[in-house]
Amino acid sequence: MQVTDPTSNASAPTDGSERQFNFSAGPAVLPEEVLLEAKNELPVYDHVGASVMEISHRSAAYDKIEESAREHMKKLLGLSDDWHVLFLQGGASMQFYQVPLNFLPEDGSADYVITGRWGTKAIKEARRVGDVRVAASSEDDDFSHVPPVEEWDLNPDASYVHITTNETVNGNQFQKDPNLDVPVVTDASSELLSRPMDLDGYGMIYAGAQKNVGPAGVTIVLIHDDFLQQRKQPLPTMLDYGTHAAKRFNTPPVFPIYMVEKVLRWLDDLGGVDAIHAINQRKSQKLYNAIDGSDFYRGTVDEDSRSMMNVTFRLVEEDLEPVFIKKAKENGLLSLGGHRTVGGMRASLYNALPEEAVDTLVAFMKEFERTHG
Amino acid sequence: MQVTDPTSNASAPTDGSERQFNFSAGPAVLPEEVLLEAKNELPVYDHVGASVMEISHRSAAYDKIEESAREHMKKLLGLSDDWHVLFLQGGASMQFYQVPLNFLPEDGSADYVITGRWGTKAIKEARRVGDVRVAASSEDDDFSHVPPVEEWDLNPDASYVHITTNETVNGNQFQKDPNLDVPVVTDASSELLSRPMDLDGYGMIYAGAQKNVGPAGVTIVLIHDDFLQQRKQPLPTMLDYGTHAAKRFNTPPVFPIYMVEKVLRWLDDLGGVDAIHAINQRKSQKLYNAIDGSDFYRGTVDEDSRSMMNVTFRLVEEDLEPVFIKKAKENGLLSLGGHRTVGGMRASLYNALPEEAVDTLVAFMKEFERTHG
Repeated sequence: MQVTDPTSNASAPTDGSERQFNFSAGPAVLPEEVLLEAKNELPVYDHVGASVMEISHRSAAYDKIEESAREHMKKLLGLSDDWHVLFLQGGASMQFYQVPLNFLPEDGSADYVITGRWGTKAIKEARRVGDVRVAASSEDDDFSHVPPVEEWDLNPDASYVHITTNETVNGNQFQKDPNLDVPVVTDASSELLSRPMDLDGYGMIYAGAQKNVGPAGVTIVLIHDDFLQQRKQPLPTMLDYGTHAAKRFNTPPVFPIYMVEKVLRWLDDLGGVDAIHAINQRKSQKLYNAIDGSDFYRGTVDEDSRSMMNVTFRLVEEDLEPVFIKKAKENGLLSLGGHRTVGGMRASLYNALPEEAVDTLVAFMKEFERTHG
Repeated sequence: MQVTDPTSNASAPTDGSERQFNFSAGPAVLPEEVLLEAKNELPVYDHVGASVMEISHRSAAYDKIEESAREHMKKLLGLSDDWHVLFLQGGASMQFYQVPLNFLPEDGSADYVITGRWGTKAIKEARRVGDVRVAASSEDDDFSHVPPVEEWDLNPDASYVHITTNETVNGNQFQKDPNLDVPVVTDASSELLSRPMDLDGYGMIYAGAQKNVGPAGVTIVLIHDDFLQQRKQPLPTMLDYGTHAAKRFNTPPVFPIYMVEKVLRWLDDLGGVDAIHAINQRKSQKLYNAIDGSDFYRGTVDEDSRSMMNVTFRLVEEDLEPVFIKKAKENGLLSLGGHRTVGGMRASLYNALPEEAVDTLVAFMKEFERTHG
């Protein structure tokens, strides 16, 4: 890692061959060890005479990779054998449709809790399928908090309650996994594997891999068998979760899954979800402290709803934000711009982002305030 | 490439660090140059401070990759600007549902020509959506030929005619692109970019990339704008071709598309589709000549319907087939087993398979016949 002293005014610190500190919201930073292992396995994987991209998805070599990914996922999250671990395609955007297609009956209803951009997209797709209700929303408050579960207007006859436990764009996060009378489905794209989860209330947990789990191109779907059995029938084959729970139906996205397997092994070697959670708490606390300890920066989310993964903040003097983002990039701090729909700044602190990156950002922020404040 | 003389009886020719001749039907062989370029670009891509898997899909660096892939695809196939080039997910299996969902109206009908396993799967999914007719089928003949277009029972009011121009499992291939009164949709998974196509009759061409175009995890959809405008509305956002034709809607499978871009550049540098077609014709002719010139082997498909990509054949003495496949593997000739549903042998001769691989296979076949005939 080569990053110049953020207190200097030097520009472009590297010659371009070095890795920099990458705060991208997704696709996002991967562990360098994982990338080097993949590099080492090109153009021939593990004595099979071809790269991993060129072997049959019915081969023993690929079987072993997918099985290892599945077993590591179960171990890391403490999933019992009642849970199916599926590796699908299409990202969370496809799940927004696939969840109601499977679980929202014609004569039924589903409850949605809307805490940001992704939940808003999820309910839009669900409305194409059937009757949905907004059980809670913080839209009027610019999604600056997660409505407490005690305030939700729940329908006891709902087929499921859909939540977004971490909103990537808006930077808020549930601080507790809800356990309700109906199964909960969560879009955990930006937080899966960043913290231990209390699984009891969930029927299904899904996530695009490209934040904490791997590269873009594979969608993690964890589904409890009791919930799976409640799905509607018949369904289009590829969109029926049962198809993929029963067997490897079609050609999976081999390389993305191969990378996921490596990331899961990396996390397991590091001590698992508890270990990374402690690191993630420390990383985000350092950054929130820097924001709170200054009148130059301000957070956009209420303290009790802040995301550990996506830290959104503004300069009090908003005109300076493009300068901040540009200067940061010149200092090897990449992708600190907020989502195009909300502006400001966002630092995504996923599992694979080294703590050193946060320390460097905090130092840069102090120096930027000193020179521009 | 290290492959022992197939006339010797030596086993396991390599130490496992070498690439072997890979006849896999898909995921399939990729150009070695492409794999080495990807290796070279890990863990940092083109001076961006991160690997290609870790950068935003809205970044300039990724924009350039996807745009280059799109432009090379258009150039190689001679697609006018009336064609949309989409990079989707879910493989041909998802297209089997997505095509009728978009183009089979409730009061309409579609015609299907069934020439093998994949066409059979396609019509099964279409039946979930609406009224479909079998315009022609060679199922009674074990899919050993492609029914001539003059014999098809076409419905002039059909919304589209669906064909499978190359059947990977059964080893047959259309020798001519049909030009009918209604738009033709083809599953070209195993032949896209292996030959020039006469585009006039097509409304849409789709292909899982994992044969001639790239690794698994991205689906190529080429769709003419006139046909696109005929789709039904409204549709689920992610399954509406119009969503993806209009803009980059969601996170694409970045790494698979990055690999596709490299494969397309490789093909362009090699002289394009005409150049590879000449090589492919020569490769397949050599293998068919070896089959036809012996009483020990026999082809499974009529001469006028044979695939240039997937050469299916049997030993007259079928009991010896497992020995053939095992011995071939020991001699560095990988994945020569037929699909699990049909047995026998299959040599997939995709673009990236070197001609030397076919020469080596033909020599091995002669030696195997000499020692086991």
